[in-house]
Amino acid sequence: MKKDSNIPYKIYLEESEMPKAWYNLRADMKNKPAPLLNPGTLEPMTYEELIPVFCDDLVKQELDDTTPYFEIPEEIRNFYKMYRPSPLVRAYCLEEKLGTPAKIYYKFEGNNTSGSHKLNSAIAQAYYAKKQGLKGVTTETGAGQWGTALSMACSYFDLDCKVYMVKCSYEQKPFRREVMRTYGASVTPSPSMDTNIGRKINAEHPGTTGSLGCAISEAVEVATSNPGYRYVLGSVLNQVLLHQSVIGLETKIALDKYNIKPDMIIGCAGGGSNLGGLIAPFMGEKLRGEADYEIVAVEPASCPSFTRGKFAYDFCDTGMVCPLAKMKTLGADFIPAANHAGGLRYHGMSSTLSQLYEDGYMKAVAVTQTDVFAAAEEFARVEGILPAPESSHAIKVAIDEALKCKQTGEEKTIVFGLTGTGYFDMVAYEKFHDGLMTDYIPTDEDLEKSMSKLPKVDK
Amino acid sequence: MKKDSNIPYKIYLEESEMPKAWYNLRADMKNKPAPLLNPGTLEPMTYEELIPVFCDDLVKQELDDTTPYFEIPEEIRNFYKMYRPSPLVRAYCLEEKLGTPAKIYYKFEGNNTSGSHKLNSAIAQAYYAKKQGLKGVTTETGAGQWGTALSMACSYFDLDCKVYMVKCSYEQKPFRREVMRTYGASVTPSPSMDTNIGRKINAEHPGTTGSLGCAISEAVEVATSNPGYRYVLGSVLNQVLLHQSVIGLETKIALDKYNIKPDMIIGCAGGGSNLGGLIAPFMGEKLRGEADYEIVAVEPASCPSFTRGKFAYDFCDTGMVCPLAKMKTLGADFIPAANHAGGLRYHGMSSTLSQLYEDGYMKAVAVTQTDVFAAAEEFARVEGILPAPESSHAIKVAIDEALKCKQTGEEKTIVFGLTGTGYFDMVAYEKFHDGLMTDYIPTDEDLEKSMSKLPKVDK
Repeated sequence: MKKDSNIPYKIYLEESEMPKAWYNLRADMKNKPAPLLNPGTLEPMTYEELIPVFCDDLVKQELDDTTPYFEIPEEIRNFYKMYRPSPLVRAYCLEEKLGTPAKIYYKFEGNNTSGSHKLNSAIAQAYYAKKQGLKGVTTETGAGQWGTALSMACSYFDLDCKVYMVKCSYEQKPFRREVMRTYGASVTPSPSMDTNIGRKINAEHPGTTGSLGCAISEAVEVATSNPGYRYVLGSVLNQVLLHQSVIGLETKIALDKYNIKPDMIIGCAGGGSNLGGLIAPFMGEKLRGEADYEIVAVEPASCPSFTRGKFAYDFCDTGMVCPLAKMKTLGADFIPAANHAGGLRYHGMSSTLSQLYEDGYMKAVAVTQTDVFAAAEEFARVEGILPAPESSHAIKVAIDEALKCKQTGEEKTIVFGLTGTGYFDMVAYEKFHDGLMTDYIPTDEDLEKSMSKLPKVDK
Repeated sequence: MKKDSNIPYKIYLEESEMPKAWYNLRADMKNKPAPLLNPGTLEPMTYEELIPVFCDDLVKQELDDTTPYFEIPEEIRNFYKMYRPSPLVRAYCLEEKLGTPAKIYYKFEGNNTSGSHKLNSAIAQAYYAKKQGLKGVTTETGAGQWGTALSMACSYFDLDCKVYMVKCSYEQKPFRREVMRTYGASVTPSPSMDTNIGRKINAEHPGTTGSLGCAISEAVEVATSNPGYRYVLGSVLNQVLLHQSVIGLETKIALDKYNIKPDMIIGCAGGGSNLGGLIAPFMGEKLRGEADYEIVAVEPASCPSFTRGKFAYDFCDTGMVCPLAKMKTLGADFIPAANHAGGLRYHGMSSTLSQLYEDGYMKAVAVTQTDVFAAAEEFARVEGILPAPESSHAIKVAIDEALKCKQTGEEKTIVFGLTGTGYFDMVAYEKFHDGLMTDYIPTDEDLEKSMSKLPKVDK
């Protein structure tokens, strides 16, 4: 096997090399992401309007688009030390298998019980809730990755954690539910009978198995109607991208340590938490004109907000109770087809990333799920790690790019984000093995329909 | 939080510090473990008798009780680099939670897709099979941890991998089966209709859901009746303990690097693969009179081979086709009660460890599974990692010992082996959360009955 003598298989930073501050990408953007709007007045949401829903410090982070660095509190850095630094891995075996001259690295965020990068922001949000003296937090979860991360974080800070889990996932995916219970979270199938909105939906749609939008509405209702509670969210928001910048910062420190200059950075994108975190310091250099990188977002062809969505103000939830965000969106009503197994099912994309995309700082590629699972399996067999379907979107494009290098002879250095492991996604893998997985690409008519309901906003 | 300023949360070795040879504990034993016996002649098994079943090089390792070190082939060291070194973690958060003056470290072997230490020997066994030019290997698996590790290893070396999986696990635990399929293994529920023994058992016991003993017999039959195949096993054997010594060697190098001298080393024990690997270099020092350590094996009260078994020759499989080994055993017929969820269900214990136990070099403790799951949950909540039930046996005793230190004020340094993660064991966790988990301790009569059938051997 070829091996660069000085580059280990896995680059681990020392504790002393770990980042001490998060990087706020917005500070370096000339065109700032548009503000959240109050759904009633259509005016920008103020600090005072947001603090009944979110923790005070998190609202400050959410609204601050000028401060470039936020110090990571020591308590969070201590928690990070339990599972970070995550390794930056040189994919020697994958390179050999592909016969590519490209050099492939991946930042692996799956070595923690939540199984993904979600923990990076969960622990931060739990910390600020604790600091504020709150009793607990509420959230929604679909398959359960974010809910698991949040339950771990709340357990660490001794906070109550109420998770509203989409009913069909609650019933069909009991294992993540049990992980959450191990960490002391209460997990309620949504729609429940605990909330006004849940009772309403159950009455209007008897036997419904729920949706993410409904679970969000329940979690927000519980947070705002119970003193000492706030609502937290695992993606899309600016604060989440801020916390997730630890991924990119560690990646850059590790690369710099070995004088490696990446040509291309690839990340999967649903709401943008991973992509925004991974690319942050690289995009910062690009925005400041200090360096150039090809930056590629990969999304599912079945939920193509970057490549086929509109750049417009839209609701963040299907219940339309949350603020409006300006983003690449397929419409708040959009739900990927039932055969969609590959994660990344949010209808919109982080405002920050949407703005950067519109301004030409990054490109996006949409891939179909059978291709994604084939790439996942190929990767697993040579690199050992069984990847999450979400992460495998990035693998697919990294392999494609490495194969292009094989044809051109280019020795590109490719870095991609491996956001997590697929241990709780074996039902989807089973479908793939049994040849039962199909692809779905929404038609133009489908998208026109869901995007026709975008709210009219003159901004 | 208290923190020794110079001891990081996680000690990772550099690639250059990783062990280059396995350590063969038997070389330093005065009383060598008794040899395997031919079940027909009751004479020690020779190299020639063993090579139809096992790979040539592995038989050499199995029989060699004098060579202290075996070089780890470069191909295996390269694979190790994909998931090793595993971290030696200082359990600062657990110490704080317990309020103990003890210093607790754990060697965490779960950061790989197989989820446990089993991969350390799987990759070695696959390598020697490949080196011998074989087509493939066969094995049995219960819950699937070993089968998963072996399928990963075979995929890496492009070997065929036939796994016979106990039928009830195959049906009730489909996720590990799918992981194995992801790595290209063929997984057959046992008893199957592919083998003579499988057909015989199916005919005699229609509707049987299988047993580990039956799966072993099928795997051995397939290996010995198909040219180019050999049988491999994930525990009990000397060769497995040899490969697993990488756990202990890395642990010792990491401790030495920071001048840490452990007082006590704790490992869970089923067949002995983890315990034998973890303690190897420490026990070596003890055997050579260079240092002293308290060494503690932890086993389930429901399958107590160390603490209540006989030290005698016994069959390694319930089908009684394999060689006899002299070991602490509950009798080859012994099967833990159906409520046993906690792993470590083998009726016997590695000959090497059994001999060391008999000679007073280590002690053993048996713990009940509800206590084990309570310790697992306590650990998960503060240290983040959701542990495998097997590993949690060691956690339970580490916590008990740390609490003793709290009473006495002793600042003992405790090292335990955290063999793996519990992501595929959530059914057991669910039982625990729902208060449905019960304990089972076999009666003296139960054990007398199963041990009454030990073969009569005058050795």
